[in-house]
Formats: sequence, structure tokens, C-alpha cells
Amino acid sequence: MGIYNFSAGPAILPPEVLEKAQNELLSLNGIGMSVMEISHRSAHFARVLESAENGIRELLEVPENYKILFLQGGASLQFSMIPMNFLKTAADYVVTGAWGEKAVKEARKCGTVNVILSTKESGFRSVPAQDELNFSQTADYIHYCSNETIDGVEFKYDLDGKGIPVVCDASSNILSKPIDVEKYALIYAGAQKNIGPSGVTLVIIRDDLLEKVPTNQFSMLDYRAIAANDSMLNTPNTWGIYLISLVCEWLKAKGGVSAMARLNEEKAKILYDAIDTSDGFYSGHAEKKARSLMNVTFRLPSENLEKQFVEEATLSGFDGLKGHRSVGGIRASVYNAFPKEGTRALVEFMREFAHKND
Amino acid sequence: MGIYNFSAGPAILPPEVLEKAQNELLSLNGIGMSVMEISHRSAHFARVLESAENGIRELLEVPENYKILFLQGGASLQFSMIPMNFLKTAADYVVTGAWGEKAVKEARKCGTVNVILSTKESGFRSVPAQDELNFSQTADYIHYCSNETIDGVEFKYDLDGKGIPVVCDASSNILSKPIDVEKYALIYAGAQKNIGPSGVTLVIIRDDLLEKVPTNQFSMLDYRAIAANDSMLNTPNTWGIYLISLVCEWLKAKGGVSAMARLNEEKAKILYDAIDTSDGFYSGHAEKKARSLMNVTFRLPSENLEKQFVEEATLSGFDGLKGHRSVGGIRASVYNAFPKEGTRALVEFMREFAHKND
Repeated sequence: MGIYNFSAGPAILPPEVLEKAQNELLSLNGIGMSVMEISHRSAHFARVLESAENGIRELLEVPENYKILFLQGGASLQFSMIPMNFLKTAADYVVTGAWGEKAVKEARKCGTVNVILSTKESGFRSVPAQDELNFSQTADYIHYCSNETIDGVEFKYDLDGKGIPVVCDASSNILSKPIDVEKYALIYAGAQKNIGPSGVTLVIIRDDLLEKVPTNQFSMLDYRAIAANDSMLNTPNTWGIYLISLVCEWLKAKGGVSAMARLNEEKAKILYDAIDTSDGFYSGHAEKKARSLMNVTFRLPSENLEKQFVEEATLSGFDGLKGHRSVGGIRASVYNAFPKEGTRALVEFMREFAHKND
Repeated sequence: MGIYNFSAGPAILPPEVLEKAQNELLSLNGIGMSVMEISHRSAHFARVLESAENGIRELLEVPENYKILFLQGGASLQFSMIPMNFLKTAADYVVTGAWGEKAVKEARKCGTVNVILSTKESGFRSVPAQDELNFSQTADYIHYCSNETIDGVEFKYDLDGKGIPVVCDASSNILSKPIDVEKYALIYAGAQKNIGPSGVTLVIIRDDLLEKVPTNQFSMLDYRAIAANDSMLNTPNTWGIYLISLVCEWLKAKGGVSAMARLNEEKAKILYDAIDTSDGFYSGHAEKKARSLMNVTFRLPSENLEKQFVEEATLSGFDGLKGHRSVGGIRASVYNAFPKEGTRALVEFMREFAHKND
């Protein structure tokens, strides 16, 4: 039985990428050694790193005054590194879900955090419009999460900081659509949703921000030192960077992020339409205009039915549909690599399940 | 042409491990998904993590009052995390090579560091005997690096802290021989030499040390929080942990760390004997009693000959022999997975090279 993998992350990877990694696992480009066995300072790995960097730069049209870095520790370590490096007086945080909340918690260990907008009280179902945001005039930076995986809400625009540096956690929607990188001072993303395997963090950082890193910062937490060493201040996650290079190649062959955006809209529409035409059997968590194209979250009439839904879906080959342990419900994550036919198959299953259990 | 891979790290992995990883890459245990594609909180990955933890615990006979953790950021991030968590008053550092020096540099950003012994002036060729070490009575901990990869010197004993917690960077000789874990409060190791691929850091930490972590520590730098969450405070490097589980299985099948120690002694002896019987054409960097079994470092009569040696060796299928860029010379790294026949083949090449160029 084939599996449709709706995991929220680590998540499905393109089959072509996995097959290439499998074919080359014992011998990268015929050199007789695995990419995992060679020095990160070898010419062989230099080409891999360059390919991953160039791939990201090309796909997202990253201007030359931004560095592309591959770190470790996931988005969670960025929650700390960002304030450790850039919070001098106070920072503004926009909170639209669980990840934004975690970022605030870490930043508060460093200094003053102004949560200028939170949708928590209404259950993390919406995202603010640009004109609802009132930034502190002295904020060192503004932080937000462009797609909240747990709650399934997504910003449909690049936030404009009006001159204040914008820092964005784009872990779960990066590379899913074109973005205007110049709106941002720093974009970061754990790789394990749309970019590659877990264990690598992509950081896109504007040059002027690097100058603000405090002197005497711990080396491995120092963006400037990492950038000066081209992500090789120490041994990076070489396998992870290799997979990223393959994912970028795959994305380019598929038409890049514009083509992905069209496909992602189609996939999400199939799922949201099924929810909206279920006569209330399925109810979407997010407000319609905030609905994530990556993580489709919805509820059933009871928790028992949700449990039954997940069990029967799993038996039918739909994996990873259980909502995050903190909120429950159902979550169908449909990142770039998730095939459109999988959304059609799930919708068919949903209709049958509703019919039998309504 | 087969390759003998002498890379210092990332380094050779057991062929059986790479083949198993290749076979399972598209479908872990027949589940229809790659280990890279499944949730770190899935039952499938729970078994992988448990297997890696139990493997390390069994191989090194780690007592129950120690936690086994898998972190990110390499040994280099540990250079910072250790003082950030445990340096309250002052710490003692023993410096026998470049990595020990780097650890001191990071710790000094936190507080008082007493370098109670350094072999730098004599060129990092030796390691002190236990009775040469005079610890500060009020030291929060003692830090040392049990094998210096760049310089090729190795401690032949488990350092005794006489009641002061001992912290050891064992990145390059962990699992190469039995150790007495109870002598240590914290052992850490980047995986990319003897344990697995780069991007995972093994930490073995005694329970009482966890209690010393400051409150309000950054989550991702907080050993207590990571231990309380069984290495899953956030998404760990799942592929890396999977590879570690396979390496542990391989080590157990090969007879464990005692069998490895015997093999490693044999391999190193073959190389050091070739150096010592070369009539001075090859000269070992380390003093004989401090010679590393993992990284055999030596010089030739001139830098030109060293360059020629590396070039000809590479053409003959001996890869990764160039010494670290900071010290030059030749370095043959012969970790657990390096085959004995590779050392014999290199020795033959060395004899021919000396004969032609003496």
C-alpha cells in the first residue's frame, strides 16, 4: 500500500530527491566516498555547499547584500540567538500561534519584549492586516512567524517594518511561494518542512544586521562569525546541506516557487472546499482569510470521532493526520513535496467518513 | 579504484552501516516512508532514538545516573554551553591541543578560567600524567580534551578529578576503547568521527550536574530541559540519530569497544612502526607515550615533500592525508571504521615514497 504522508515535520521529501540520495549514498558523484564521509573543507563538499546556497538564492531571488547560512539547532535555537544578538533596548513581537509564543518566551530571557499583537485570546485563528500593526518606534526589530503549523494560520503578505528590521520565522512556508526578501532583515527556517531533513536551519540575513552582533558573543551563537566563515565555523550538518542542494535542484526543475505557489493553492483549495461543503461535519480552525496553505487544521463533531478518523485514515494509508498534541483535532500538512492526488484521495476518504458517521 | 579514506572528520563510516542506510532510505523498516520524513514524535522514530541511546549505554557501560542526549551544534557549541551552565566561580582547563584552546576561548566569555596546564609552548606533543595536574580546590569543573585530532595526542587514562566534576571533549576517541564513565560528570562528542555523521553531538551527563543549570537558561542551551525532554525539546537531527543507532549495532556485532581498542592499537602500531623505522624520513609529531591511536600525525623532511606525498597518495587512492591547515604535515586518521588493510597499504606506499625521495 502506498502511503500519503501528511506529517507536519519532519515531512515528506520529493521522491526524486530521496532516490538520488539513495543512489549516491555510497559514492557522491562517483568519488568512492559518501557525502557523510568527506571533510566539510574538501572541494567535493564545497561544491555541495555552493549548490545549496545558490539554489536558495536563485529560488527566492535573494539580493547580494544578504548572506545565506546553514546553522544547527532548529528554529528553536534561533528564538534565543536572535535576541542574544539583536535585542538591545526592546523588540516587538507579533504572536499568531504557538511558535510565536515560544519565541517570546526565549526573548524575554534577554530583555524587554513588547507583544504588540496577539491572537491568543481568540484561539489563534487569524492573522492581523498590516494596518492593524503599530510598531514601537524604538524597537530593535519586529518578530513574527509567517505560518503557524500547529494552528494553521498564515500571513498572506510580507510584513512591512516601516524601517524597523523585520525578523521572520518562515520554517513552515519558506519556498512554498515567492516572497519579497528585501522586506526582511532576517528570515530563518528549520529545514524539516519544505527544505530538507531536520538538523539544519536556514538563515537569510542582511549584511547590516551582522554589524550589530555584540563583540565577545559566543562563537557558535554569533551570526557575524558564522557568516564570515561561510557556515563553516565548525563542521556543519553536511548530509542535511546535501539534501537541501537536491531539494533546490528539484524545485528548479518543477518551475520554482511560483509554480509551487500555484500547486499549493490548488492542493489547499481541494481540502478547504471539502471542509466547507461538509455541512458542518468538518469545521476549519482558522478564519478563512488566514487559512494556511501548508497546514490545514480542522475539527470533527467530537474528540471520539477525531480519534476514529485518525485511526481509520492511518489504516487507509493516510499518515500523520493527528493534530498537534497541544491543540488536538486534525491537521493535514501539504508542503511542496506533497502530491496533489494525495489531497484528492483524502477528500474522498473524508466524504466517506462523514457519510458513515454523520 | 577503491579509496582508503583517512579523513579526520567527517570520516569514514562502516560500509555495512552505509549499505543498510541506503537500503532503508526510502522506507524505514518497510513503513513506506524515509526516516527523514517521519515525525520525531512517531512510534517509528521513538524506536530509533531508543536504539541509539541504548546502544551508547551498552557499549560504554553508562550507569543509570547518567543521561544520554543527542544535541546539535557540534563540540563547538558545547565549548559555550558548558561554561554557560556550569561556570559559576572558576573552572580549570587542561590544554593539550587546538580544541582545548578553543574551549578556553569560549569559556573566558563566561567567567574565570584557570589554564592549570598547557603544552602549547612545546608544540602540543604531549599529555600530562595524572600527578602533574594540580586542580584548583574551588573549581566548578575540570575540562580537558581526551584526544586532540589536529596534533595527534591522546590521554591514555581517564582523568581523575579528585571530587571536582570532570568534563571531557571525547569527540575523536569516543567508542574507540572502554572508558570508566563514572570518572566523568559530562562527556561530549561531535558524532562525525567515531559515532555517525556530522550534525549530532552526543552528551553523556551525570544527573547531579543537571541540577546546577541556572534557572532562566535559554531552552536550547539548557541541559536540564533537553534531558527532561529526552533530547526532543525540539526536532532533533533524526537522520543523524538513526545513523548512530546503526553504528552502535555494527559496533556490538564487531565485539564492542574492547574489540575496537585491540584493532585500533594494531592499526596505529602499523603506522607508528613505519614512522619509527624510516631512518628519520618520517618523524612523528607527538611524543611516543602521548601518541593518538586515532590521528597519526607526522612530518617529512620538507614541506615540498609533504605536498608531493599528499598528491601522490591521493592519486594512489589514499584520501584525506593532508594535515590540518593550522599545522601542516601529514595526518592519517584511523577511526573505528577504518580497515586494518588500509594501514598496511599506506605503509607500503610510505616505504616506496621514502625510497624514491630519500
